[in-house]
Amino acid sequence: MQTETSRHNHLSQTTALLARTPAALDALLRDLPDTWTAQNEGGDSWTPVGVVGHLIQGERTDWIPRVKMILEFGESRTFEPFDRLAQNRESRGQSLPQLLDEFSRLRSANLTDLGRLNLREEDMERRGRHPAFGSVTLSQLLATWAAHDLTHLHQISRVMAYQYRDAVGPWRVYLGVLQCAGHSS
Amino acid sequence: MQTETSRHNHLSQTTALLARTPAALDALLRDLPDTWTAQNEGGDSWTPVGVVGHLIQGERTDWIPRVKMILEFGESRTFEPFDRLAQNRESRGQSLPQLLDEFSRLRSANLTDLGRLNLREEDMERRGRHPAFGSVTLSQLLATWAAHDLTHLHQISRVMAYQYRDAVGPWRVYLGVLQCAGHSS
Repeated sequence: MQTETSRHNHLSQTTALLARTPAALDALLRDLPDTWTAQNEGGDSWTPVGVVGHLIQGERTDWIPRVKMILEFGESRTFEPFDRLAQNRESRGQSLPQLLDEFSRLRSANLTDLGRLNLREEDMERRGRHPAFGSVTLSQLLATWAAHDLTHLHQISRVMAYQYRDAVGPWRVYLGVLQCAGHSS
Repeated sequence: MQTETSRHNHLSQTTALLARTPAALDALLRDLPDTWTAQNEGGDSWTPVGVVGHLIQGERTDWIPRVKMILEFGESRTFEPFDRLAQNRESRGQSLPQLLDEFSRLRSANLTDLGRLNLREEDMERRGRHPAFGSVTLSQLLATWAAHDLTHLHQISRVMAYQYRDAVGPWRVYLGVLQCAGHSS
């Protein structure tokens, strides 16, 4: 069991990461050639552009709406399922720079929203109802928001490396990212 | 076999990525709490700070020195083996901001150096000798420089996510990065 202090640190650690992800993706992806950003790992797998669209959907419909549902309704209402493919409709026709701008704007607004909620230590153990998992805590939801950024940064680096899988020749065996099976699909 | 045009694009794609990695790592890691940057996946596995030290070593001793060896000596001299643990000596006592600054400075200088070499299409198939693989091309070396950035961005996102493996509770099963076995160790 975490102490109250570690729970408080946990929230500030989480928001520190959440605040940095848009700038990190911007620095990596903006104006990079399409070879890197608009290609996938085959079939209907995701491109880096598609991943940014997905992160935008999370900002719109998943994280803060669920935080508010926990605070308002506890376990009496089940979260809306998160549409993992909504970006195919919602982001259609938008350029990568537009998507990066939108992600940055929404994340910043959501962190402001989160700050205004003035969450206290005791709020972290408040519970909501997830459509698949059942009872979950606010603390778990907030940690997942940050880890979800990391799972998609992990995915983007893997999708980009895939484009060079042949170009690297024999070095392929030394590059762990090229052995990654893509665990999120 | 690639056409000359695609080989030329390949070099500009490679340098486009190489130029962005320091800023992406800076945006992600600078001033982030130590929980994220100074912890590893157990044992003697690497921290994000250690990874930045390793990238610095690559800039100092691996990529450009090998490019120059290919151009000067072809296959007649074998590359120096790359010391994957040199950062444990060389970066000792340096803060993460110092390491990020140093990585950025070295990468920028190396890309300037690369540009001055005025590599032509026909240079891309020039060959050198790798201590483990034997004959390799300049094209493969340059592609590996970029893919090596991505394998370590992939690793950093995995190491950071590992710190939240318990905090996310049941969401763990949805987060692919937490199923990644760490292929680069």
